[in-house]
Amino acid sequence: MGFRLTPQENSFYDLFAKSASYLIDGSRELTTILGVAHSERETVAARMREIEHAADEATHEIIRKVNSSFITPFDREDIHGLASTLDDCMDLMDAAVDLIVLYRIGDLPAGVSDQVEVLSRMSELTAEAMPRLRSMKDLSEYWIEINRLENQADQIYRGLLAALFNGEYGTDAITIMKLKEVIEELEAAADAFETVAHKVESIAVKES
Amino acid sequence: MGFRLTPQENSFYDLFAKSASYLIDGSRELTTILGVAHSERETVAARMREIEHAADEATHEIIRKVNSSFITPFDREDIHGLASTLDDCMDLMDAAVDLIVLYRIGDLPAGVSDQVEVLSRMSELTAEAMPRLRSMKDLSEYWIEINRLENQADQIYRGLLAALFNGEYGTDAITIMKLKEVIEELEAAADAFETVAHKVESIAVKES
Amino acid sequence: MGFRLTPQENSFYDLFAKSASYLIDGSRELTTILGVAHSERETVAARMREIEHAADEATHEIIRKVNSSFITPFDREDIHGLASTLDDCMDLMDAAVDLIVLYRIGDLPAGVSDQVEVLSRMSELTAEAMPRLRSMKDLSEYWIEINRLENQADQIYRGLLAALFNGEYGTDAITIMKLKEVIEELEAAADAFETVAHKVESIAVKES
Repeated sequence: MGFRLTPQENSFYDLFAKSASYLIDGSRELTTILGVAHSERETVAARMREIEHAADEATHEIIRKVNSSFITPFDREDIHGLASTLDDCMDLMDAAVDLIVLYRIGDLPAGVSDQVEVLSRMSELTAEAMPRLRSMKDLSEYWIEINRLENQADQIYRGLLAALFNGEYGTDAITIMKLKEVIEELEAAADAFETVAHKVESIAVKES
Repeated sequence: MGFRLTPQENSFYDLFAKSASYLIDGSRELTTILGVAHSERETVAARMREIEHAADEATHEIIRKVNSSFITPFDREDIHGLASTLDDCMDLMDAAVDLIVLYRIGDLPAGVSDQVEVLSRMSELTAEAMPRLRSMKDLSEYWIEINRLENQADQIYRGLLAALFNGEYGTDAITIMKLKEVIEELEAAADAFETVAHKVESIAVKES
Repeated sequence: MGFRLTPQENSFYDLFAKSASYLIDGSRELTTILGVAHSERETVAARMREIEHAADEATHEIIRKVNSSFITPFDREDIHGLASTLDDCMDLMDAAVDLIVLYRIGDLPAGVSDQVEVLSRMSELTAEAMPRLRSMKDLSEYWIEINRLENQADQIYRGLLAALFNGEYGTDAITIMKLKEVIEELEAAADAFETVAHKVESIAVKES
């Protein structure tokens, strides 16, 4: 009978896949909150918080496993780094949902839906890429596509800011400030997805 | 007579402890500026600047020692990284004090005191943890508590922003912008303390 | 005849020098946009975009070379890190130019020229330092001077914010918000130059 030397190693990939799968759930709630009546926003935000907690738990599981494992599939610090940047994506999407409720924001500009659509696609791609960490193969198309999406997110973001500051969504300074915050959290989330991709790229470079 | 092989190594811990002790001094001035008359704020800010300069000097002392030491207690880059994130905590608390004076801010919302209280506690915990880098023991309770405090800081921050944007501190957009800046610097300081804790955690993981 | 073992190694320095040279070009356009008539701003922004694209291409060339080289002059991750922080400097200067056009900003405060002057000097120093990575000599004066300039940039930034929020450039909240964004991108660019210097410092420390 064969002797499996490193049974624990494998599950790191599962944990990363699990962690990234919450990003898909999170981006779904983000999409939902843009469409529901204002009175139902708190319900969506509550679900988002639950997802964020579950994602947090997944991050801690990875950290605990790193700390207790004798052998890890790649550098301990890289596992740490990847886990925490995945967590950042979740936190920033959660923050956007939170602000929509906290600030009692009225109607959201259409461009915000475009931002969220990019984040949904980024979430899917990131979740799909995680299992490929095992072979370190076919990852370059993932990070190239994420970079492309991040550029697209940038364009949408700039367009939204221009419209916002040039009066297309009214001239009330406080309303503009509130909308700007939400738009910025979403842009920061897109940046965080790119940071995940850079992290994956640098791990692949190191391990190659 | 015994021969001390690594006399220089030890003092890295002392330098980190010294560097972190300035954070306690800094958070004390931050607490003070919230309570004094507006006319005395400049005096507090001047003391804060002195502490910030001393902290800066401590950071440079660490960097110089790294550059001139043959043996270091842990990775050179980690020493660099830890020194510079400790410096960030100081810079951000200093920035908040600076803005209060620069913007001639009127009364500060009560929630700001709550933010500062969390920062004071974070400063103490961080200063207490530094000497434990020597043994790398009992550090996990430090970073768990810092994470907890950072979550608390987040809650306070979100609450403050909601109150601010929903008109609880008036409806003057420029006043709201000014207060928001101060509140954000304090939140960034809390985040920086968490980054220090993450750094310590990753060093401990690496060295274990 | 001698046998050159590592012909590829050398060109990393050339690539970094090339990448940094775009920062000089970029800071020149930034200086230009402050002086031209509003109607000509779009033309300057278009040139800036071209420079930004060329810089981006240089970054990718470095990454590709890292991925395909068997031997690299210093750590692969450090090459990655340095390339991407150089890219950040460019992106932030480009973002400032972009916002000036997008927000249809009127006259810019004089202090903005001071910010840009510091960035021009930082660009030159950074471009001059890159070839010295080869010998890892005489780099400390570079990073010390960048730190000094970053402190100067900080002072200018704080002064600008104070003037802005205390009504020196009018009391229209939306105008203040727009100007603040531009000023902040420029400050972030100065910070990014400091990050490059820190990166160079940490590489020098590691390799020494």
